Amino acid sequence: MAPALREEIARRYGTPAVVIDLDRVARNIARLQAACEAGGVANRPHVKTHKSPVLARMQIEAGARGVTCQKLGEAEVMAAAGIDDILISYNLLGPQAVGRLGRLLRESAARITVAADNPVTVAGLPEAARAGGRTLDVVVECDTGRRRAGVETPGEAVALARDIAGRPGLAFAGLLLYPPTGGVASAQRFLDEAQAGLAAHGLSARIVSTGGTPNLPEIGQVRGATEHRAGTVIFNDRMMMAAGVATLQDCALAVLARVVSRAAPERGILDAGSKTLTSDTGGGLDGFGLLPDHPGARIAAFAEEHGFLDLSACPERPAVGTLVEVVPNHVCVVVNMVDALVAVRDGAIVGTIPVEARGMIA
Amino acid sequence: MAPALREEIARRYGTPAVVIDLDRVARNIARLQAACEAGGVANRPHVKTHKSPVLARMQIEAGARGVTCQKLGEAEVMAAAGIDDILISYNLLGPQAVGRLGRLLRESAARITVAADNPVTVAGLPEAARAGGRTLDVVVECDTGRRRAGVETPGEAVALARDIAGRPGLAFAGLLLYPPTGGVASAQRFLDEAQAGLAAHGLSARIVSTGGTPNLPEIGQVRGATEHRAGTVIFNDRMMMAAGVATLQDCALAVLARVVSRAAPERGILDAGSKTLTSDTGGGLDGFGLLPDHPGARIAAFAEEHGFLDLSACPERPAVGTLVEVVPNHVCVVVNMVDALVAVRDGAIVGTIPVEARGMIA
Repeated sequence: MAPALREEIARRYGTPAVVIDLDRVARNIARLQAACEAGGVANRPHVKTHKSPVLARMQIEAGARGVTCQKLGEAEVMAAAGIDDILISYNLLGPQAVGRLGRLLRESAARITVAADNPVTVAGLPEAARAGGRTLDVVVECDTGRRRAGVETPGEAVALARDIAGRPGLAFAGLLLYPPTGGVASAQRFLDEAQAGLAAHGLSARIVSTGGTPNLPEIGQVRGATEHRAGTVIFNDRMMMAAGVATLQDCALAVLARVVSRAAPERGILDAGSKTLTSDTGGGLDGFGLLPDHPGARIAAFAEEHGFLDLSACPERPAVGTLVEVVPNHVCVVVNMVDALVAVRDGAIVGTIPVEARGMIA
Repeated sequence: MAPALREEIARRYGTPAVVIDLDRVARNIARLQAACEAGGVANRPHVKTHKSPVLARMQIEAGARGVTCQKLGEAEVMAAAGIDDILISYNLLGPQAVGRLGRLLRESAARITVAADNPVTVAGLPEAARAGGRTLDVVVECDTGRRRAGVETPGEAVALARDIAGRPGLAFAGLLLYPPTGGVASAQRFLDEAQAGLAAHGLSARIVSTGGTPNLPEIGQVRGATEHRAGTVIFNDRMMMAAGVATLQDCALAVLARVVSRAAPERGILDAGSKTLTSDTGGGLDGFGLLPDHPGARIAAFAEEHGFLDLSACPERPAVGTLVEVVPNHVCVVVNMVDALVAVRDGAIVGTIPVEARGMIA
């Protein structure tokens, strides 16, 4: 950002401000769409990163089949904004979630698919389908190496698919994978074995969804994959730079912060702390963000509203009052801290974009 | 919480939910008030922890002189709710902050005091006083050992006080300290030297403010202190337990989460991840929260909406669907993640309390 643009953003919105460059956003959206098309899979970007129907609409207009949501609240916001094909890649469990899912099915015309990785979740879903008055598509989440959510073996995947297919109001729709980077071969083995097991029981996976921005270079490499879910790529961050899938020029989001104190010659204090940039280390990065214009400056620690800069290795030390840009370690959690993003295009402020699904933790 | 209460909260509000026990809140408020009275200082609790005028009002009614805010947005919310004595313990810098401060001074009848630790901040404040049509009280923030914000020497404190006193519309009001735990003696030396310097220039500190929940046992031990700012004690958390100033029974806030997947026998997955509990380690605690009812369970890692439990040392492993309480590492950042707290009293749900100043990062 040019100095005059920084000053204008700070004058209008104050600091810290979370700023996105719509030119870069459009480029990143196009890049993901092109990667999916080249890989022969549909694009279903994950909205957890932006939580904004405005940005989801840009993704759909660029060719995305639909969106992925991690929370029911995100899906409700997207459906209300007219997004018509929504995958909720999460175990929805308990009476409140089942009740809301039923209402969503009844009140929205959107295609809704949910994920499950265990029979307790599956057992609760028929009530949502009944209340919604239509069949609910369910995919089985599979753990293909990340040790996060998902059934652990192809056999479990088949058993859960049969459980789904046997329940009133539910349809088995496919498999959801999130292979680790470089994990195509082991994911393929899991998938092939699961698909053989499904076929033996007269079932088949209409959807085979892979995931992740780190996996961008591997999109389409799992044979049989039908679609991909990537979130972070719309903005990128320091973590994606470290993963080798983004450069600084691909980073479309920065936190504009002000140096509000210097305290000592080798120290500085930003007005962005853990309540803005979050304590996310991005998987063990050094410091809590990158200051592209101040090489050597390191965000060494946080208070809630203070970012403590170690300037000892910084040749040009920013004075009190200086506006600085910070590329966050992890954009998805930073967007979630604010009610609106400041959008710029071609070097000028366009306005703000509400983070509509922010804070919808349930 | 009794199992039936957990179920009722989950049924009404879904999970995760951030729940406070108003009986414990009232006890914690009374404890802080009593500690201040015993120490001979006024109580000015820090609202960064709760960001709620409802809870600030409870603190005022228990005897607090006023409140402390870390952000202008917090002060605006508190003033609009009728809180009439507000200290903003932060360098307010830049045209947007100065403009808002001027409006706050003009439109509110509240006593407003701000902090500064450098001449750039001080130079901007007369414009706020001019726009506000009244004198602005300014305290000098002093670093008495924590190496956070604050002037580093008594001499700098005196120089900044003289700067403030010489500016149109500003009044030097006192000194703001946040001594490290056990740092009474060094804070005393700083304060005595600063006060002697002030006296030599015909100035005096009407306010000498100390801070912190970890410093609760030391309230009033700095001679000349007039008031104390403590935030976390209203709820307490794992960090305050580790600091030895709270027990589990003093913790008035818990995140109610559900086990949504088990993945493997020694693992479990909560529906509360880094977008609810935050990645705050509480200064290096083991794991991202405490599960009082499942000793041995450890929140080992996060995804944004998943908390990954290591149950290998857990004798009674919670099944999928189980509701669990999590005492966060750091409550102040967790409250900031949600729009409302669920309040219970005497074992029953009272309703929700809005976190009105949430997300007001600027």
